[in-house]
Amino acid sequence: MSFADWLFGAPLASWEDREQRIGIAAGVPTFGLDALSSAAYGPEAALTLLIPAGVAGVAYIVPLSLTIILLLAIVFTSYWQTIAAYPKGGGSYTVASENLGRLPGVTAAAALIVDYVLDVAVGISAGVGALVSAVPGLQHDTVAICLGILLVLTVINLRGVREAGVAFMAPTFLFIGCLLLVIGRGLWAMVASGGHPHAVVAPPSASAAHAVEAVSAWLLIRAFAGGCTALTGVEAVSNGVSAFREPASKTAQRTLTIIVALLAILLAGIAVLVRAYHIVATPPGSAHYQSVLAMLTAAVTGRGWFFFVTVASILLVLSLSANTAFAGFPRLCQIVAEGGFLPTFFAMRGRRLVYNIGIIVLTLLAGILLIAFGGVTDRLIPLFAIGAFLAFTLSQAGMVVHWRRKRGPHWHRNLMLNGVGAIATGITVLVVLVAKFTEGAWITALVIPALVWMMVRVKRQYERMERAVRPQPLRLDHLQPPIAVVPIAGWNLVTENALRFACTLTPHVRVVHIHSADEDMPAQPNWQPAMAEAAAQAGIPAPQLDIVESPYRFVIGPILDYVLKLEHDSPDREIAIVVPEIVARRWQHFLLHNHHATALKAMLLLKGSSRTVVINVPWYIKK
Amino acid sequence: MSFADWLFGAPLASWEDREQRIGIAAGVPTFGLDALSSAAYGPEAALTLLIPAGVAGVAYIVPLSLTIILLLAIVFTSYWQTIAAYPKGGGSYTVASENLGRLPGVTAAAALIVDYVLDVAVGISAGVGALVSAVPGLQHDTVAICLGILLVLTVINLRGVREAGVAFMAPTFLFIGCLLLVIGRGLWAMVASGGHPHAVVAPPSASAAHAVEAVSAWLLIRAFAGGCTALTGVEAVSNGVSAFREPASKTAQRTLTIIVALLAILLAGIAVLVRAYHIVATPPGSAHYQSVLAMLTAAVTGRGWFFFVTVASILLVLSLSANTAFAGFPRLCQIVAEGGFLPTFFAMRGRRLVYNIGIIVLTLLAGILLIAFGGVTDRLIPLFAIGAFLAFTLSQAGMVVHWRRKRGPHWHRNLMLNGVGAIATGITVLVVLVAKFTEGAWITALVIPALVWMMVRVKRQYERMERAVRPQPLRLDHLQPPIAVVPIAGWNLVTENALRFACTLTPHVRVVHIHSADEDMPAQPNWQPAMAEAAAQAGIPAPQLDIVESPYRFVIGPILDYVLKLEHDSPDREIAIVVPEIVARRWQHFLLHNHHATALKAMLLLKGSSRTVVINVPWYIKK
Repeated sequence: MSFADWLFGAPLASWEDREQRIGIAAGVPTFGLDALSSAAYGPEAALTLLIPAGVAGVAYIVPLSLTIILLLAIVFTSYWQTIAAYPKGGGSYTVASENLGRLPGVTAAAALIVDYVLDVAVGISAGVGALVSAVPGLQHDTVAICLGILLVLTVINLRGVREAGVAFMAPTFLFIGCLLLVIGRGLWAMVASGGHPHAVVAPPSASAAHAVEAVSAWLLIRAFAGGCTALTGVEAVSNGVSAFREPASKTAQRTLTIIVALLAILLAGIAVLVRAYHIVATPPGSAHYQSVLAMLTAAVTGRGWFFFVTVASILLVLSLSANTAFAGFPRLCQIVAEGGFLPTFFAMRGRRLVYNIGIIVLTLLAGILLIAFGGVTDRLIPLFAIGAFLAFTLSQAGMVVHWRRKRGPHWHRNLMLNGVGAIATGITVLVVLVAKFTEGAWITALVIPALVWMMVRVKRQYERMERAVRPQPLRLDHLQPPIAVVPIAGWNLVTENALRFACTLTPHVRVVHIHSADEDMPAQPNWQPAMAEAAAQAGIPAPQLDIVESPYRFVIGPILDYVLKLEHDSPDREIAIVVPEIVARRWQHFLLHNHHATALKAMLLLKGSSRTVVINVPWYIKK
Repeated sequence: MSFADWLFGAPLASWEDREQRIGIAAGVPTFGLDALSSAAYGPEAALTLLIPAGVAGVAYIVPLSLTIILLLAIVFTSYWQTIAAYPKGGGSYTVASENLGRLPGVTAAAALIVDYVLDVAVGISAGVGALVSAVPGLQHDTVAICLGILLVLTVINLRGVREAGVAFMAPTFLFIGCLLLVIGRGLWAMVASGGHPHAVVAPPSASAAHAVEAVSAWLLIRAFAGGCTALTGVEAVSNGVSAFREPASKTAQRTLTIIVALLAILLAGIAVLVRAYHIVATPPGSAHYQSVLAMLTAAVTGRGWFFFVTVASILLVLSLSANTAFAGFPRLCQIVAEGGFLPTFFAMRGRRLVYNIGIIVLTLLAGILLIAFGGVTDRLIPLFAIGAFLAFTLSQAGMVVHWRRKRGPHWHRNLMLNGVGAIATGITVLVVLVAKFTEGAWITALVIPALVWMMVRVKRQYERMERAVRPQPLRLDHLQPPIAVVPIAGWNLVTENALRFACTLTPHVRVVHIHSADEDMPAQPNWQPAMAEAAAQAGIPAPQLDIVESPYRFVIGPILDYVLKLEHDSPDREIAIVVPEIVARRWQHFLLHNHHATALKAMLLLKGSSRTVVINVPWYIKK
C-alpha cells in the first residue's frame, strides 16, 4: 500500500461513483454543518449588537429571529424548487445563468466563491478562538491549530465525500441533540413557571446590564444584519445535488428540509429562551465574556457534565463547519469550470472521485487568510453574509424568470413566492452592505466584481481557443517530410544518436554547428566528408553541414535565427529541430549538464510557429 | 540600446579578448586591492591581540611584522615562479594538481574558494562597519548597504575585467598615496627627533594603557596568527594570469612585484611608526574605539583635511577589496571546471568575456553570508587566513616537486627556497588553526573537506559521462522509421496537426485514446473509419487506433504504460511520442490549458530509454 493510498484511500473507479453517493444521514453533516453551526453565532451576533440597549434590547430578539426564520423559509422554498428544477446541481449559479444571463450567473458564482472561502477561515478560527478562550495556554499556537484543522479537513475531504460525511456525523448529531435537549428542557421550565423560569445558574450580567442607548430602528437593522449570518450555508445542498444517492433530487430535498427545519427550531428556541431568561450578551474580548449559548445552557441545566458536553460539541461543530464549504466549493467550481468560466482542471475528478483541485485551492485561499489574520478572523465576519445573500437574491430572481417561462402547475404561486424572496433577500443584501460597509463589507464589494471580471476573461479566452481549434473533416493528404535541423556542438554518441534519428524521419537533414572561434577550436570543424561517407554507405542522401559563426559566444540565439530563417525560406515545409539531450536521472547530476536543449525549446515555443516542431532525443547516462 | 547593453555593456566578440586584457596600472587595483587593503587590518589584528600586554606589547609589533614580511617574501617568490611556470593561470590549484596529484590540487582549489567567498563578505562588511561607526545613523541599514556594494561590484565585474580595473584605479592609488605620505612624514619626524617623535594628536589610550598580562609565547603566536591575515590576497594574481596583457606572464609578474613591494613597505612602515608613537590598539566595539591607522595618521599629521581624506580612502578600499575575489574567483572556477571538478558552465564566457557564472555564484554565496550574519562578519575573520595559507602551502610544496622534476638552472636554490616556504606556511596554517580553532576555524576545517568531496564526485560523474558517450566512427546504416504514438483526447485542429505530422515521419502511426467512462463520453469513440478514409485518399497506410480504458481517470499513467509496453514489444524500433500541445504566449493563459503534454514528457524522460523520443507539436492560439 502506497503512502497516497494510506492517506487518501485507494483510487476509486468511475463506475464506483454510485456507491460513493451519500444519503440523508451523511448529507446533514456534510452539507448542513455550516447552516446548523450558524445557530451558534447568528443569535449571538444579533444579541451582541443589542448590548447597548440592555435588557430592553433582549426583548427584540424574538421578532428579529422570527423575521430571520421567515427569510429562511423563503430561501428554503426557493432552493427546494431549484433542486427539483436543476438536478445536476449548481444552485444559484445555474439558476441565475440559465434564467438571467451570463453576468448574473457569474456574479452569483463569484459571490458564493468568496462566501465559501470566508466560511472556512471564519469557521475554523471561531472554533479555535472558543477553544483558546477556554484553554488560554494555547494562545500562542492559534495559527498552528487553525492550520492543523484545515489540513485535517483537506485530507478527509480528499478521501471522498462519503468519508467526510461519515467522519462528521457524530459531532453533528451530538451538537443537535444537546441543543434540542437544552431547548426542550428550557421550554418545559418556562411553561411550568408561567413564562418566568428560574435560572439554575443566573446569567452573569443580566442584573448589572443597563441601557446606554435607546432602541432605535438603526440598532434593530444592524442587529438584523448580524443575525442574518445564521442563514449562510443554506445554499450548500443545492450546489451538491450530484453528491446525493439516487433519486438525487429527492434525497437532496429531504436533506435540505431536515437541515432547515432543525435550524429554524434552534433559532426559534434560542430566541424564546434568551428572552425568558433575560440573557444579555457579554462583549466579546472582555474578561467576563461568555457565549450566549453557554449562558443559556448554564441557566437551563446548570454547570454539570451536560453543560461541558454541550459547550464542547458547540466548539467542535464550529471548527468543523468549514467542512460544508469543502463539500460545496469544489462542486461549484466544477460546474462553473464546465461552463468555461474557470480553468478546466477544476472539473477533473481525482482518485477518490472528488474535485481535488477545488479542495486544494480552497485550502490554499483559506490558509492564506488564516495566516494573514493570525487565526483571528473576527474582522472577516462583516464580509461574511453579503456573498451568501447576493447569491440568494440572484437565485430567487432567476426562479421568477424560470416560472414565467415554464408556467407549470401553480406557477403563479411559485412566481409570487420567489418574487417576495428576491425582494426580501435583495433588501437584506443592501441592509447588510450598508450596516457593515465601513467595517469591511467594502472589501467584498470590491472582490466580487474583480472575480467576475476574471471569470469573464477566462470564458472569452476559452471561446477564442474553441473557435481557433474547431475540427474539420480529417485530411491526411499533401504530406511532405519535414526538414530536420540537428544542432551539434561536437561528435559523441549523444549527437550521433540524434543524427541517426533525424535520418529516419526525413531525407532532408541539416546539421547546424555554432562556431565560436577561441582557443579550444580555432578553425571551423569539417564533418562533411564523414557524414557524406556514412550516408553513401547507408544509401541515403547526405546530411548538409551548416556552420554559423557566433563571435559573441551565444548559442541559443544563432540556432533560433537559423531556424526562423529556414522557416521563412521554406513556407510550405515543417521544420523539425532534433535536439540531442543528455538526461540525468539523478538530481545531483542535473547541474552537470548544460541545458541548452531546454533553453532552445523554450525559445522556439515563444518565437516559433505551428510549423516548428521540437524533437527531444534523450540519451541516458548509465549509472 | 537594450537594458542589458546599458547595464553590462555591449557584447564583446571573442576576438576582442586581446583588447580587454589589462596592464599593470589596472592590474594593481584589480588583483591587488585585497592584498593592499589588508595593510589596514593585518597590523590592527595583531595589535588588538597585544592589548592585554599594554605598551610593552607594542614593542613586539616590529619583529612580528618582520616575520610576516619574511613570509610574504617567500610566498611572493613562490608565486613569481608559479606565474612563469604556469602562464595559463590557476596558481595553487594548477601547481598542486600537476605536481602533487589530484587530491592536493582540489584541496588547494577548495581552500581558495572558501577564502574568496569569505574575502568578499568580510571585506564589504569591514568597510561598511567602519562607515557605520563613523555615521551611526546608518546602523539599521547595514545589511542593505552591504548588499548594495555587493551588487555594484557584481555589475561592474560583469562589465568585464578591464572596466573593473579602471573603476577601482582612483581609490586604490589614493589609498596608497595617502598611506605612503603618512609613513614618509612619520619616518622623517622619527629620524629628526632621534627616534622619539612628538605626536601631533596623541594616541588616546597610550598613557592610560597598563599591562594586565605578561607577554607570553602564546600571546605572540596568536598575534602572529592575527597579523597573517595581511597576506591574504597575494595569490590572486597567479589565478588571473590570463587576464593580463601579453606577454601575460611578464605583466603579471610585474604587477605582483609592485603589489607585494607596496604591501611590504606599508606593513614595515606601520610597524615602525606604531612602536615609535606608542600606539596601543583600542578594543573594537568599545565607545572610544579608533582604528590603528586612524590613530597613526592623527599622530603624524594631526586631524586636518588630510586625515579625513586618508581615513575615507581606507574605508573605500576596505569595502572595495572584495573586488579582488571577483577577479580571482571566476578564473579559479573556470580553470577548475576545465579540469572537470566543477560544472562546465563555470568555464563559459559571458557577453563581456568574463566568466559570468563564477561572478554570480560568488555574489550569491557572499550575499547569503552577509544576510545570515546581518552584515557583521567579525566572527568570520577567524576563518579567514586558513584557506589562503593552506593554498600557499600546497603551492609551495608543489613547486618543490616541480623543481625536482624539471631541474632547470638554479634548481637547487629554488627548491630550497620553496621548501622553506612550504614549511613556513605549513607551520602558519597549523598556528592559525590552533590559535583560532574554537573561535570558528573549525568551520573552515569542515567546509574545505566537504567541498573537496563534492568536487571529486563531480569529476567522477564527468568521467563516467565521457566514457559513456565516447564517439565511434559515424554510421547511418540500418535506419528504420520509428513507430509514432499520438495520444489524442478528442478531435480538433491541434490534434489533427499532430497526427498529420506523425504521418509525415513514418508509415507506422498509432493513435492512442485514453478512455474513462463517464457522463461526458460513456462509449468508446470510433475514429477508425474517418482515419482509414483520410489515409486511403492520401495513399498512405492508415493509422491504427488503440483505446486504453482508464477506470481511475488517470491519463499520464496509461499512456506511459502503453509506450513502455510498445518499447518492450518492439526491441529494435524507436518510439516517437508525438504530443499535441496548445501553446500559450501569454502567461495569464498558461493556467487555462492542461499540461498533460509537459507531465507526460517529464515522466517519459524518467522512465523511458534512449529509444523513446518525445516530439512536441505546438499549436499557437491566435490572439
